[in-house]
Amino acid sequence: MTDAKASLASERSAGVLELLRLFTDDATAADHYAAACLDKANAAEPFLKAFEYLPRDIARRPGPLSGIPVAIKDIIATSDMPTTNGSPIYRDAVPAADAWVVERLRQLGATIFGKTVSTEFAWRHPGPTVNPWNPRHTPGGSSSGSAAAVAAGIVPLALGSQTLGSVIRPAAFNGVVGFKPSFGAIPRTGVHPLSPSLDHVGFFARRVDDVALALSLLGGASDSDPHGRSVPAFDVSIEHGLTPLEKPRLAVVRFTRWSRAEPEQQQVLEAASAKLRDAGAILQELELADLDQANWATINTILASEAAVIFERLVERYPERTSDHLKSLVQAGKVHGATDYLAAKATQERLRSAFASEISGFDAVLTLPAFGEAPEGLSYTGDAEYCAPWTLLGVPAISLPAGFGGKRLPLGLQVVGAYRQDHRTLRVAKWIEGVLQFDPGVPGM
Amino acid sequence: MTDAKASLASERSAGVLELLRLFTDDATAADHYAAACLDKANAAEPFLKAFEYLPRDIARRPGPLSGIPVAIKDIIATSDMPTTNGSPIYRDAVPAADAWVVERLRQLGATIFGKTVSTEFAWRHPGPTVNPWNPRHTPGGSSSGSAAAVAAGIVPLALGSQTLGSVIRPAAFNGVVGFKPSFGAIPRTGVHPLSPSLDHVGFFARRVDDVALALSLLGGASDSDPHGRSVPAFDVSIEHGLTPLEKPRLAVVRFTRWSRAEPEQQQVLEAASAKLRDAGAILQELELADLDQANWATINTILASEAAVIFERLVERYPERTSDHLKSLVQAGKVHGATDYLAAKATQERLRSAFASEISGFDAVLTLPAFGEAPEGLSYTGDAEYCAPWTLLGVPAISLPAGFGGKRLPLGLQVVGAYRQDHRTLRVAKWIEGVLQFDPGVPGM
Repeated sequence: MTDAKASLASERSAGVLELLRLFTDDATAADHYAAACLDKANAAEPFLKAFEYLPRDIARRPGPLSGIPVAIKDIIATSDMPTTNGSPIYRDAVPAADAWVVERLRQLGATIFGKTVSTEFAWRHPGPTVNPWNPRHTPGGSSSGSAAAVAAGIVPLALGSQTLGSVIRPAAFNGVVGFKPSFGAIPRTGVHPLSPSLDHVGFFARRVDDVALALSLLGGASDSDPHGRSVPAFDVSIEHGLTPLEKPRLAVVRFTRWSRAEPEQQQVLEAASAKLRDAGAILQELELADLDQANWATINTILASEAAVIFERLVERYPERTSDHLKSLVQAGKVHGATDYLAAKATQERLRSAFASEISGFDAVLTLPAFGEAPEGLSYTGDAEYCAPWTLLGVPAISLPAGFGGKRLPLGLQVVGAYRQDHRTLRVAKWIEGVLQFDPGVPGM
Repeated sequence: MTDAKASLASERSAGVLELLRLFTDDATAADHYAAACLDKANAAEPFLKAFEYLPRDIARRPGPLSGIPVAIKDIIATSDMPTTNGSPIYRDAVPAADAWVVERLRQLGATIFGKTVSTEFAWRHPGPTVNPWNPRHTPGGSSSGSAAAVAAGIVPLALGSQTLGSVIRPAAFNGVVGFKPSFGAIPRTGVHPLSPSLDHVGFFARRVDDVALALSLLGGASDSDPHGRSVPAFDVSIEHGLTPLEKPRLAVVRFTRWSRAEPEQQQVLEAASAKLRDAGAILQELELADLDQANWATINTILASEAAVIFERLVERYPERTSDHLKSLVQAGKVHGATDYLAAKATQERLRSAFASEISGFDAVLTLPAFGEAPEGLSYTGDAEYCAPWTLLGVPAISLPAGFGGKRLPLGLQVVGAYRQDHRTLRVAKWIEGVLQFDPGVPGM
């Protein structure tokens, strides 16, 4: 291994495609890299607290993701590591079987690189993880540890999940790429449910190409979780990555909550819009009034109702070991009538159909991922109001790092596409990434 | 056309496959047959009241079902005929588009032979149709007119729908074959919903081969109605029909409600069991205690909750033109909490998984379709307690004519299979049909 290669293999900002190209030429580089990742994790953990569990050592397997360490959000079952679901009730519990997505990762040769901190059952009660850019701030949630581990350069890829804003929000707060594919893209078997009508598996990485590769390899359908529809297959070239979709037609969506966004976050969108326009994109404001008005009540009715059924007995049985956040969620869900719930589901369908028309003249939506920087303190994982509309619609959404705020914490941009147009949406995001040329780097911890 | 052919073409008991074989040899026979059907319908209508609408004349189209008149339950949209949904609110309303299944029938060359009486929105408030075996008795519902029209020999094939027992029950009461395929087998776009988690499109005919042909041609998937999973494709030979599944392993399911069945209905199952055993079938009692205990409350919670959302505004807006049955259904649905509804949905999933295991050692279930003969009077369309378990599970179910009761009204048997094993289930039913050799004939009206 040359010095340059050795340097890449220990580089915190190496992406999945870069690493795979390196490993093809030089298989020992993969072992070197894995060992370096474990060292980085062990060094950062006392401070970062991103992991619930780290393996002692790492064995490489053959396959298209051979040598790539992937961190797994701890609501996703692993048969060889505990899966706490972010709850003391499951402390030290080792599931009988891998989740569907973990099994697939192993088949692809990826290294299951430990379990990352999740909020309690992916709802609001936070874990101990700090924001690697400033430990007095939340990393966001619920996929807190996955976002922080990628941001800190410990792993190049991590699995998360999103029911409200749990991928997009922490991605933005940590200055990494976060991707929530279309509803139905990835079977959720073995992922602890929060709200089956809304739960999505998603990814964190440092490059758009890397999350695109992840979906191209991990997308699929399973009888064990028939939900939504799987996404049409596509390939990502390890050599070249995705082909950018040049000069896309972008719908700029601000929503009425725009005025509540931090000025620096607003400015990130304005500055990016100007750059993209200069590079040839066609930008047009789009209102989406119905979605703006209805999405928050709708998603919360669906989420609370479904969560109440899932957690009702748990909060009764373990009052001491469940949080007030979880208890409130169950209470909120039990208030709804069956017709409230079903009316919310019908609204979800109506908004989905409407959005399919509204987006039809555009390649993607450009919007905010959050109101601004990660809030101070660890008790509140941040707002999800810019994430919820797209989760409710089940459409693909990507957060890209795009700047820094007044407190030198990362800010992002969100790119959203039409249902099952994940490939096109990622190609738009790749083009935007190339135009913005913004790399937040790795926080000095 | 020979005399024999002319006789077949006006024969009331001709089946779809027989007719197709005849029409291949002699295209004019199809026109002759269609005209005869229309004559029979017009002659029977003053007494039978099976149709909401009959066409004036009939034009033949090319295709695999060319010349086959198919009667359509009147909750299924037709763009060239009114679709009343069994409700005075829709009197004379002509939909803008055909239902998916009607469009498919037209593409196949079938003749859309009028609209048959449905109870109000396929719920309990009956229409005017009488039982062709005895006009003082109900034909059953909700697909009342479709069952009666096939029983009376007016059409060889009719579309119905089942949410609780609306195909199997009227099939049994009218002495015809009724088939409710697996949930997801046929898109319901353009069929008025009652409970989307339970609504199925189904068929009435005189032979197992005929309903099998109908599913083989009409099964499919549509983005406009993603529900369940489509059934694996299969072919039905026009020359030979299905290949019977010889000497099947049959699970005899009686449920605890067995003691409430009429003695003649019990006797039909016992006599059939003896014949089938003699012919080489292996019969074994199967208890299904969980399904027995939980299915009625579960299906009614799901049905009422979903129906309440669908009909809530309608009963408020049209108090004079909606029945007490429909109003009670809405009231019942509004009482349920969202968690009651979702718990019922979870129970449905649990029972589905359990049944998949319980049925795995068998080719099919043999059970009753109803407690006995069609009740006297037209106000009550009969019990659905032997239908509801299979509707809840979404598994294929077939009612076969199997005898007569004490009042000389038809009695049936029900054959049920594993989810998406429609082909196998139909092959078992074909074998049973061949062993029983029971033909109730056509009622003398």
